[in-house]
Amino acid sequence: MPLDAARLDPASLLGGWQELNAAATIAHCVDNVERTAAIDNFRRLATAGPDGPQGTFRGPWFADSDLYKTLEAIGWEAGRSGTDRWADLLSEVADLFEQVQTPDGYLNTYVQGTPGREPFADPEWTHELYCAGHLMQAAVALHRGGGDGRFLAVARRVADQIVREFGADGRPVVDGHPEVETALVELYRETGDESYLRAAELQVERRGHRSLHVGRFGSQYYQDHLPVREATEAIGHSVRQLYQAAGVTDVYLENGDETLLEAMERLWDSAFGTKMYIIGGHGSRHRDESYGDPYELPPDRAYAETCASIAALQWCWRMLLATGRARYAEEMERALLNAIAASMDDTGTAFFYSNPLQLRTGHDGSHEDAPSERLPWYNCACCPPNLARLLASMNGYAATSGPEGVHLHLLTAGTFTGERLTAVVETGYPWDGDVLVTVSGGGELAVRVPAWATGATVAVSGGRVLAGPVPGDYLRVACEDGATVRLTLPMTPRLVRADERVDAVRGCVTVMRGPLVYCVEQADLPEDVLVEQLRLDPSSPVVEERTPGDVTPVRLRLSGTIQPPEAELYRPYGPAPAARTPITFTAIPYHAWANRGPGAMRVWIPTA
Amino acid sequence: MPLDAARLDPASLLGGWQELNAAATIAHCVDNVERTAAIDNFRRLATAGPDGPQGTFRGPWFADSDLYKTLEAIGWEAGRSGTDRWADLLSEVADLFEQVQTPDGYLNTYVQGTPGREPFADPEWTHELYCAGHLMQAAVALHRGGGDGRFLAVARRVADQIVREFGADGRPVVDGHPEVETALVELYRETGDESYLRAAELQVERRGHRSLHVGRFGSQYYQDHLPVREATEAIGHSVRQLYQAAGVTDVYLENGDETLLEAMERLWDSAFGTKMYIIGGHGSRHRDESYGDPYELPPDRAYAETCASIAALQWCWRMLLATGRARYAEEMERALLNAIAASMDDTGTAFFYSNPLQLRTGHDGSHEDAPSERLPWYNCACCPPNLARLLASMNGYAATSGPEGVHLHLLTAGTFTGERLTAVVETGYPWDGDVLVTVSGGGELAVRVPAWATGATVAVSGGRVLAGPVPGDYLRVACEDGATVRLTLPMTPRLVRADERVDAVRGCVTVMRGPLVYCVEQADLPEDVLVEQLRLDPSSPVVEERTPGDVTPVRLRLSGTIQPPEAELYRPYGPAPAARTPITFTAIPYHAWANRGPGAMRVWIPTA
Repeated sequence: MPLDAARLDPASLLGGWQELNAAATIAHCVDNVERTAAIDNFRRLATAGPDGPQGTFRGPWFADSDLYKTLEAIGWEAGRSGTDRWADLLSEVADLFEQVQTPDGYLNTYVQGTPGREPFADPEWTHELYCAGHLMQAAVALHRGGGDGRFLAVARRVADQIVREFGADGRPVVDGHPEVETALVELYRETGDESYLRAAELQVERRGHRSLHVGRFGSQYYQDHLPVREATEAIGHSVRQLYQAAGVTDVYLENGDETLLEAMERLWDSAFGTKMYIIGGHGSRHRDESYGDPYELPPDRAYAETCASIAALQWCWRMLLATGRARYAEEMERALLNAIAASMDDTGTAFFYSNPLQLRTGHDGSHEDAPSERLPWYNCACCPPNLARLLASMNGYAATSGPEGVHLHLLTAGTFTGERLTAVVETGYPWDGDVLVTVSGGGELAVRVPAWATGATVAVSGGRVLAGPVPGDYLRVACEDGATVRLTLPMTPRLVRADERVDAVRGCVTVMRGPLVYCVEQADLPEDVLVEQLRLDPSSPVVEERTPGDVTPVRLRLSGTIQPPEAELYRPYGPAPAARTPITFTAIPYHAWANRGPGAMRVWIPTA
Repeated sequence: MPLDAARLDPASLLGGWQELNAAATIAHCVDNVERTAAIDNFRRLATAGPDGPQGTFRGPWFADSDLYKTLEAIGWEAGRSGTDRWADLLSEVADLFEQVQTPDGYLNTYVQGTPGREPFADPEWTHELYCAGHLMQAAVALHRGGGDGRFLAVARRVADQIVREFGADGRPVVDGHPEVETALVELYRETGDESYLRAAELQVERRGHRSLHVGRFGSQYYQDHLPVREATEAIGHSVRQLYQAAGVTDVYLENGDETLLEAMERLWDSAFGTKMYIIGGHGSRHRDESYGDPYELPPDRAYAETCASIAALQWCWRMLLATGRARYAEEMERALLNAIAASMDDTGTAFFYSNPLQLRTGHDGSHEDAPSERLPWYNCACCPPNLARLLASMNGYAATSGPEGVHLHLLTAGTFTGERLTAVVETGYPWDGDVLVTVSGGGELAVRVPAWATGATVAVSGGRVLAGPVPGDYLRVACEDGATVRLTLPMTPRLVRADERVDAVRGCVTVMRGPLVYCVEQADLPEDVLVEQLRLDPSSPVVEERTPGDVTPVRLRLSGTIQPPEAELYRPYGPAPAARTPITFTAIPYHAWANRGPGAMRVWIPTA
């Protein structure tokens, strides 16, 4: 949909986050890319005298991308709200880009600003194409958002150099961090220049032939271990894997190579069927930020990087566009309302980099990728501006339109204007399950029915149900002008368990209500009861506690027992200590955790 | 005991390993320190012309220590067996050390051989005192083993420089990797020079005041976060933590500062009571080779570095000397017969660096610290020569003697000659539980009764039982010349579970027999049954399968069911698929795993 055709209700959960992003997060990102020298790195090169630049490059080698992602957020936000809050910044930065970019199009302040570095000499680690991709995406966003085209011109010169250097007759180089693939396809869409699509195809086809040095983490770290059509297992660095998959799917969407789509469907089953956390997190290992083995999903050491969930959402979006299958929108929603939502606090200025599903009593919280509370910024600051660009464009993920009508993928309140009809959605979802859609114009309205919504019902006025409501598929209604479609989803809390092969949560359940995963925090327990002592009685009812207007309007009351501590680490098999005291305790949505000081937390609770 | 006073029976498990070490492992280490240039780094500096050395330093910055540990192994082995197999090597290396050592005593081929490096300029990372410590330990071993004293002279010059540079009036520097503490105490014991003990005390007292740069992994990575008497939790890099603790205990043993012993007892409870794997492994995290939170003990991502188990054994040995408490010997045995024993194959030339307790079906095995099979050497080769030096000195850990008699700590066949009596131990332990000790001379014989040995009995001839046999304590017998003491330990296999707080193995048991932890391997299952499908019926008997003379003479036959695979990663709570087929399956000692090709393995088995 065009940027202005999909508008989220600011009172909705998603719409509220988008407003918070506009009001706080983007400005926080601007402040921090300024503070951490990501802009100064450009200023330093732009003001270099004949003896070269003063001082040294600062920050990590991919610091340019922090700025680019922030600019992308500004671009989407300008397109959404028309804000000109960052006009001066955009003007200065455009000047800087033009000044620093070389005549042949090269632009990377780490390589240009570090003695001894040569362009494209070290593709495993320098992230040059990765940064270039984020520049292209920023330029596309700023262009669609009404910018004056200077960024697009800079980005095209960057892309043109990539086409010359790494085109069909150029050097067969792939970047150690996939990202440029999807960016090149976006730039092709924005400009119509097919050379960008061809360059993206070449990146996709060349990866997987072990052209990159093996490195400390192996070829699979950057998905260079197997050609794209042969790689059936999601593996290696999870953000790299997911950005690559998004790029491959983008290439398929434009060139129609069905073998790519088949490969992506296989890979998707591996990632989402054997390696995904229930919160929509990906990548369990801290060591190399990578996927683990199938079913290796420890809640405590979940890396589940925020960027990986964002990348997963972006890949699912492209798979949805490619296939129309509801399961992809379902997983977008899971990631968005759980892992991604949890990664930002309610001020919009503090973030998680990793998203564990458990913190123990005594968790030391000393690592920035395993903290006890959100931090305002990170040394590796990929996540905060990635959130900003996602949230600024979130309205664009809610619905699609086509000649036949409008599809609603995220069940959020808002207004979605397609070619034939406009759908106004009124709902308190995900807090309640009543979704009322009023249609003006006429045509087909499709509304996704979540897979968990067994018992969903629909009431239609001024229209005719064509299909559904079937959980995990789209309710389809032929609507007249003025039609109303009321979808009612059962929001009864439900206990969920994992596949028996997920060893780390054996004997545990979690509680979900609608799309939201819940968790238990120490802050909700009496002082003398520890989270680690809770045992859930799965036969007891789960009681809703409603606080209308609260940031978490629905909490859940669970029943169980208190497990006494043991004295020995290992002991003869036999029942655990028997004296168990009954307790009822509160669970809150996972995305709201860690807002009341550090403390133990768990999503998966052992059964009594 | 003096080196020649404790002799292991070569037919015993421990004695056999010591023979294998002498025949194969030490030579393999010599070949590999030669191959990886750890000796060439010395030759390069020794042959340097006026323009400085040719080429560059090779290997990791601590490569000297690989050589030193190998030399230490040779020293202990020479003392044990009198071998002169490596006389030429020792002669050449002593020449090299003398040539490369500077007049002020400095000796480190990384710093001396790398332009721009200055001695002791970067204590966080250069491991200079760590390497110096291993040199001292090698020199002590070679001296005790009958060497000509050249190594000891080199080591003393190194230690003398440390005393001058970092003594009470010197710079208050601690090394990023503890190790020199225990080495300085050993050098003090060997030479009587108290300045070495004082230098060790200063290292102990100065650590914990955040004098080291925080670094990527925080101050606790090198135990620099809290002074030794305030640090109650085992934390940070596990080998560093355990070497430090060994050094602190050594200092206590010599200076008698009870506050140090109290601190070590607290720390020991944390390490061994909340953070130890049942195989005697320490340090669960791959990212920084560190301890996790209490009870964070995932079997699949167990880092459990071989060096950490060796360090744990060395610490326990010192705690045993300090207190005489059996629990320390118990944990030495656990580590030795499980984690450490597993880290070497039955050729003595392939090794594990990390020691997981589970490999899944589909484990990719692509990381050298999470492989599917033992490797002949490592880029970070700390473990193999550490094993070699431990095994060469293993006889020294089996028993102690004093004026009253002999204490037997490891229940191995062998001959142990104290001041008053000689104990000849005949036993097939740990395969069978009959331990016959024949005493010549007279005095008190103490034999450790393992904590699991409920029902142990003793029969004495020519002596009088003073105490026991009580599990977890020492049987004490006043012996006449010719007395026999027959201790009989119940070797019935037993199911063991973990503290409820060890989330990663909830609902699982493991099987132990005597001190040995058992595991199940894919190689022992029918092709159509996967390890991950096994469920153990804890009410079924565990049957012993005996194969006398085999490398694993006692295997165990377990009974349970086969769990069918599931189709969904997450699903509504309810019973797992019900169709379960009975199965009996074999478990082998954990230390014997991974000798039949790569495949799934698990120590902890879910109960049916």
